[in-house]
Amino acid sequence: MLNDLLATRVNPDVPSALSGLFVNDPDPRAISFAAGSPNESLFPVAAVKEAFNTAIDTQGAHLFQYQSTQGNPDLRAKLAARIGKWGRVTTTADHVILTVGGQQAIELVAKALLNPGDEVAVEVPTYVGALAALDLYQPTYYGVGLQADGLDLDVLETTLKRHPGIKLLYTVPDFHNPTGITMSVAKRQQLVALANRYDFIILEDSPYRDLGYDQGPLPAIKSFDTEGRVIFVSSLSKILMPALRTGWLVADGDLLAAILKVRQASDLEATGVTHAAINAYLDANDLDAHVTVLKDHYREQCAAMVAALRAYFPDEATFTTPAGGFFDWVTLPESVDVDQLLRTQVMPNAHVSYVPSTNFYPARDVHNGMRLCFSGLTPDVIDAGMHRLGDQMKAAVRGVKPVF
Amino acid sequence: MLNDLLATRVNPDVPSALSGLFVNDPDPRAISFAAGSPNESLFPVAAVKEAFNTAIDTQGAHLFQYQSTQGNPDLRAKLAARIGKWGRVTTTADHVILTVGGQQAIELVAKALLNPGDEVAVEVPTYVGALAALDLYQPTYYGVGLQADGLDLDVLETTLKRHPGIKLLYTVPDFHNPTGITMSVAKRQQLVALANRYDFIILEDSPYRDLGYDQGPLPAIKSFDTEGRVIFVSSLSKILMPALRTGWLVADGDLLAAILKVRQASDLEATGVTHAAINAYLDANDLDAHVTVLKDHYREQCAAMVAALRAYFPDEATFTTPAGGFFDWVTLPESVDVDQLLRTQVMPNAHVSYVPSTNFYPARDVHNGMRLCFSGLTPDVIDAGMHRLGDQMKAAVRGVKPVF
Repeated sequence: MLNDLLATRVNPDVPSALSGLFVNDPDPRAISFAAGSPNESLFPVAAVKEAFNTAIDTQGAHLFQYQSTQGNPDLRAKLAARIGKWGRVTTTADHVILTVGGQQAIELVAKALLNPGDEVAVEVPTYVGALAALDLYQPTYYGVGLQADGLDLDVLETTLKRHPGIKLLYTVPDFHNPTGITMSVAKRQQLVALANRYDFIILEDSPYRDLGYDQGPLPAIKSFDTEGRVIFVSSLSKILMPALRTGWLVADGDLLAAILKVRQASDLEATGVTHAAINAYLDANDLDAHVTVLKDHYREQCAAMVAALRAYFPDEATFTTPAGGFFDWVTLPESVDVDQLLRTQVMPNAHVSYVPSTNFYPARDVHNGMRLCFSGLTPDVIDAGMHRLGDQMKAAVRGVKPVF
Repeated sequence: MLNDLLATRVNPDVPSALSGLFVNDPDPRAISFAAGSPNESLFPVAAVKEAFNTAIDTQGAHLFQYQSTQGNPDLRAKLAARIGKWGRVTTTADHVILTVGGQQAIELVAKALLNPGDEVAVEVPTYVGALAALDLYQPTYYGVGLQADGLDLDVLETTLKRHPGIKLLYTVPDFHNPTGITMSVAKRQQLVALANRYDFIILEDSPYRDLGYDQGPLPAIKSFDTEGRVIFVSSLSKILMPALRTGWLVADGDLLAAILKVRQASDLEATGVTHAAINAYLDANDLDAHVTVLKDHYREQCAAMVAALRAYFPDEATFTTPAGGFFDWVTLPESVDVDQLLRTQVMPNAHVSYVPSTNFYPARDVHNGMRLCFSGLTPDVIDAGMHRLGDQMKAAVRGVKPVF
């Protein structure tokens, strides 16, 4: 009955786009390729513990007082310098806002920009959490497909001509979630030109940019920004630790002011003690050296995943071969409904999970793809899980139920 | 130009309701009665540092992984027990959500309930940050005045009869921000009866409930809830430390599910490492003993404020005499515009600040009140600042500009 009092944005009959991510399988043999969690065995726990102590010892009680909506200025300066060095973005601490993970940054941009029905372009497939955040502000979506070098700009321009009111494009240009695809430098430049011509904002979400297995990060889309139209978002969740809940964004002018205003009203400010600890960690440790260790692990895990896809999946399946990040994307023949398979066959029989493609499409209308995340698993476990999953997919493609 | 792309909720021409709180005066003699910050000299820094170490040592790397949207279950259980003991609310950890301060809890409730134009009742004056959070969802406000024992329920019922669509009432029942007023137990019961009769939700925001100088906390409004219509919000910012950014809410049924859904989309989850540290702090320390220390200090500071109001303010001023919390509310004759006075006289000449009443009214239309916060200042400083402020107010009431 109280449901009648909910805002229409809640739509209690539709599950959260994020709820599909966390499927629990009570079987101890269960292997999850679903959640996009970093590998916690690589977390620099001792160094971060030391950093908390340093921050508290250095600043004392004042560290625990209300601080600022924008966040710790020293940490903001370090992040501005970092995206300057690795992404060629010329910016300063004054243009950085620290957020509660990259997720809050996306939500704040949506909140600052979108009236109900406003038109938004997204890559399809796209990050499920971005859809959840954008959904809160009830946009009209236009999906634009991906090519091997990122967003299909021809399709985007056709869409922009048909729908000149589009005010926001959301993109994950680096080791895209969920496909692992990276946008070429040429397309980054062209995308900014399109934004200038068609008067829209680009939300560049780049949490995986440091995790190219054999390459350094590409220049950010934001580095080509000439009119303050690009909002750059990143996070320390994937290269340091998620539970520090520290994301950040870079924006300019009116957009920066608007985001800061809605952020202050949303939660006043993020966790000052955590930001001070991260700042102390960065003073005492070489984050890039830590990232190199991560890259070595994720390269090996990705190789195990790709090898297993080749070895165990049916020939009818196609998949991406990521050069960085956490994810591989598999496409099955259109007749295969991976959503239904997960519930009725894969989980109960093979005790393996993945995220079905429906979650990554605004209309939830594509049923034959899956995101596989390899970041949290060892090569052996990846091989074992993919063997079981591959058998299921072969059976599904052949329309035959496997016997266990 | 990019301003054209902002959502109407941002309204860049209107300053944030919260921006009036933080007026900077470069003069070293400046005394601020503006910001509602707790007294940081009372923060249990050593115990909290120890708690961070305990949490990290006990849980290791897994502490820094993604955890849950609802938040640390041990801490939720402790908070559920706490509001059971002190507020007589029968609830469990399953009904608690940990939030980024009480501010996020308010914003999440607004997000879960309000479509643009939806009708909301608020106390006038009311907490400036609640207005900022509610403003994001563009409600139609109805203000209901306060009496010595809290919300004027006769006016509320008249308002409900005229506007039966009102779906939410926001109230700060304990040591109200900004007036210091506490709602009587009888009114709490009657308010729930009104909510049942007129089908609205009560958002009970109670961050100061533990800080009654000479009394224990009253039963929460939520303790009288018979239909799951009351959402209880509190925070550790005022009784522990703000920079831990830990608020919490208690809700039931459909409302709980809706809030959890919009919360997951907003920032996935709050800072796990901080929640584990708070949980470890509560295992090793007696929070109620700490609260007793706080009460002794705030009692003394409040007494200094009330004595200074009697000694230095013009007879034409009326003021509240709080029995707990951080705030006193002063009303000047209607001819006095405290907003203009602050900028043109009080700050430049007396180097004292306060928050003008406009910030606490949805229509920003009441100019002759001020919130004075005494929580961060010693009795000597309160006396000195109030002497200077009182001289300004006497001059304003007499229409004479004081000479310095």
